[in-house]
Amino acid sequence: MKYSDRIVAMQESPIRKLVPVADEAKRKGKKVYHLNIGQPDIRTPKEFFEPIRNFQENVLAYAHSQGIKELVDSLIKYYEKHNIYFDKDDIIVTNGGSEALIFSLIATCDHGDEVLIPEPFYTNYNGFGSMAGVNVVPITTKAECGFHLPEKEEITKLITPKTKAILIANPGNPTGAVYTKDEIYMLRDIAKEHNLFIIADEVYKEFVYDGLEFMSFAHLDDISDRVILTDSISKRYSACGARIGCIASRNKDLMKQVMKLAQGRLCVATIEQIGAANLINVPDSYIEEVKQEYWKRRDVVYDALKDMEGVVCEKPHGAFYVIAKLPIKDAEDFVVWMLNEFDVNNETVMMAPAEGFYATEGLGKDEVRISYCINAEDLKKAMNILNEGLKVYPGRI
Amino acid sequence: MKYSDRIVAMQESPIRKLVPVADEAKRKGKKVYHLNIGQPDIRTPKEFFEPIRNFQENVLAYAHSQGIKELVDSLIKYYEKHNIYFDKDDIIVTNGGSEALIFSLIATCDHGDEVLIPEPFYTNYNGFGSMAGVNVVPITTKAECGFHLPEKEEITKLITPKTKAILIANPGNPTGAVYTKDEIYMLRDIAKEHNLFIIADEVYKEFVYDGLEFMSFAHLDDISDRVILTDSISKRYSACGARIGCIASRNKDLMKQVMKLAQGRLCVATIEQIGAANLINVPDSYIEEVKQEYWKRRDVVYDALKDMEGVVCEKPHGAFYVIAKLPIKDAEDFVVWMLNEFDVNNETVMMAPAEGFYATEGLGKDEVRISYCINAEDLKKAMNILNEGLKVYPGRI
Repeated sequence: MKYSDRIVAMQESPIRKLVPVADEAKRKGKKVYHLNIGQPDIRTPKEFFEPIRNFQENVLAYAHSQGIKELVDSLIKYYEKHNIYFDKDDIIVTNGGSEALIFSLIATCDHGDEVLIPEPFYTNYNGFGSMAGVNVVPITTKAECGFHLPEKEEITKLITPKTKAILIANPGNPTGAVYTKDEIYMLRDIAKEHNLFIIADEVYKEFVYDGLEFMSFAHLDDISDRVILTDSISKRYSACGARIGCIASRNKDLMKQVMKLAQGRLCVATIEQIGAANLINVPDSYIEEVKQEYWKRRDVVYDALKDMEGVVCEKPHGAFYVIAKLPIKDAEDFVVWMLNEFDVNNETVMMAPAEGFYATEGLGKDEVRISYCINAEDLKKAMNILNEGLKVYPGRI
Repeated sequence: MKYSDRIVAMQESPIRKLVPVADEAKRKGKKVYHLNIGQPDIRTPKEFFEPIRNFQENVLAYAHSQGIKELVDSLIKYYEKHNIYFDKDDIIVTNGGSEALIFSLIATCDHGDEVLIPEPFYTNYNGFGSMAGVNVVPITTKAECGFHLPEKEEITKLITPKTKAILIANPGNPTGAVYTKDEIYMLRDIAKEHNLFIIADEVYKEFVYDGLEFMSFAHLDDISDRVILTDSISKRYSACGARIGCIASRNKDLMKQVMKLAQGRLCVATIEQIGAANLINVPDSYIEEVKQEYWKRRDVVYDALKDMEGVVCEKPHGAFYVIAKLPIKDAEDFVVWMLNEFDVNNETVMMAPAEGFYATEGLGKDEVRISYCINAEDLKKAMNILNEGLKVYPGRI
């Protein structure tokens, strides 16, 4: 049987495709530190679970396609704290940030249209592009520039009549880059001059370190009709398994169109929505503590990496990832070798080969994405294992 | 701002787009019987809620992209009861049946490819087609034939080089048709002769009345590489809000491809999966009682409809819907009128205009889909209201 060209062409998730190798290592009794996936070990707030335990309805009915009223209201309140002002028609609850991104692409692009995305980028953008039939056009950014954006002309020369949107994660995954106000303004200007949407993936907005200030694209009133926010509770409340996100825009006509997609899939899981709605009652100190914790972890990882011989890495200022260039040829081979062949006291490390985070052929082959969302003690051990592994890896260059 | 052509072209859900009209009627104090939506009033089994109330993890982590092991195992056991045999690699848990359908279309069709679907069909198939860039080619079926399939030649003449699959709901929504073995075999032969996939939406398989026997496409061993099952717990366990479904096929290569889509959106809501996994412990008597209850409701609705003057309707043998042709010109106008202008003792009825369930222009304009998943007493009242409304509706012909 022949499958569709588009599904055959899709890459496997570089974050998840080596999971069977890790599972095999664990079966052999090895402990594996998972630096490959953004799964925090932070406690999910008790506020999430309370209303779920108390759920007393007899029938688990469809929710509204837009999302339950309590959750939409709580999201409005949440954004107000960030000086972002949405009406109730501006928000649709989605199956995680993932669905918000797919909806954004379908709503703005037809088949064969193009979206500009700074690379390296969250690898699943490729998958969403394939699903939606949209071509990803990378804006290449470089480790030595802290993954900041290139000059305006470098970006505008990528624009064609098929370009419909710029998709950007701020702070960046996998780069940890936090874009400056000037960068945000530059993209705003480009969007206005070339009539583009900006799809802003801001799921890591809480996690900005070193005193930097986060600026949302939703803060730009003059392009509020062009800005589509995609968001998720997964990271800020350590609730990845809830699959609760949202798509939001002050362009009400756009949201009416998106509502058709939401109605098509009926609704988002009701019980998780009920839990998510109560997160508005989590004290702000929770987020602040989590941020401080990640900041500490960032320091552990970055300090270790910068002392490793042959490793190149700029300090990331946001999210909980860092891209490191290693003194090797093929990061996937190295990651597999670390799992299969290497250990320190029967412990090893799993990372995500970075190639899958690039759209440009050949980039990222000697890079890995390291997620620092496990605890500092484990991160120290993991960094030591990585360092020792690099010393003896047969493919070291 | 210009949105994509595909989203602008999408129809609003005919099931949900008139909800604001119903909401307005309710605000004015009218009671509305919702016959527009397949939202059962049947109690969700307590087995669903128990493990959710007892969930004690500190971190609500991502689940496996395939679905949690307990749920996959429980689905395997569930299918065994229906003499359908899947391995653990044959099943991927999805966000309701909806996501299973989207995955099926993306995996089998490229942009511009075609899928044959007996019409009238579940209206959201149109939306999934638009999202996936796949053209729906209707196999028209008729009320006077009980919505059974036409002759083989009628179907095969619709096949082009772009045809990749036949998508069929059995029992049918909105028709209530239960396909005979001969029909199933005919589609099998067509699939073999024209190298097509069969995407079988069997979410209503439990609800077959009048002693008819349900046959699954998954029972056909000789085309197991061509059959993709899409399923959901929504209807059989009255758990629509859980958004737990699955896609299943014994074509393991296909499932490997589908796994890429599943990995792209990370996972399905964890808490609802935990509840769903425990449904395997619901006694078989629950399903039998629910089926008997729907059977009784079917009788209430059908008996009432066949006695209404000018109404044409064949007895549906499965699911919990019936298509009725009314002595009117424009069903949407009639449904709005019933909500806005008509009541019996301040009560009225909402139905789904059937036009949106057809792909062929002009069909279904004088038809409505009636869902009989509310209790028999209310259905009796609702049928009386419909009958009285039809008598005085100004647009009656």
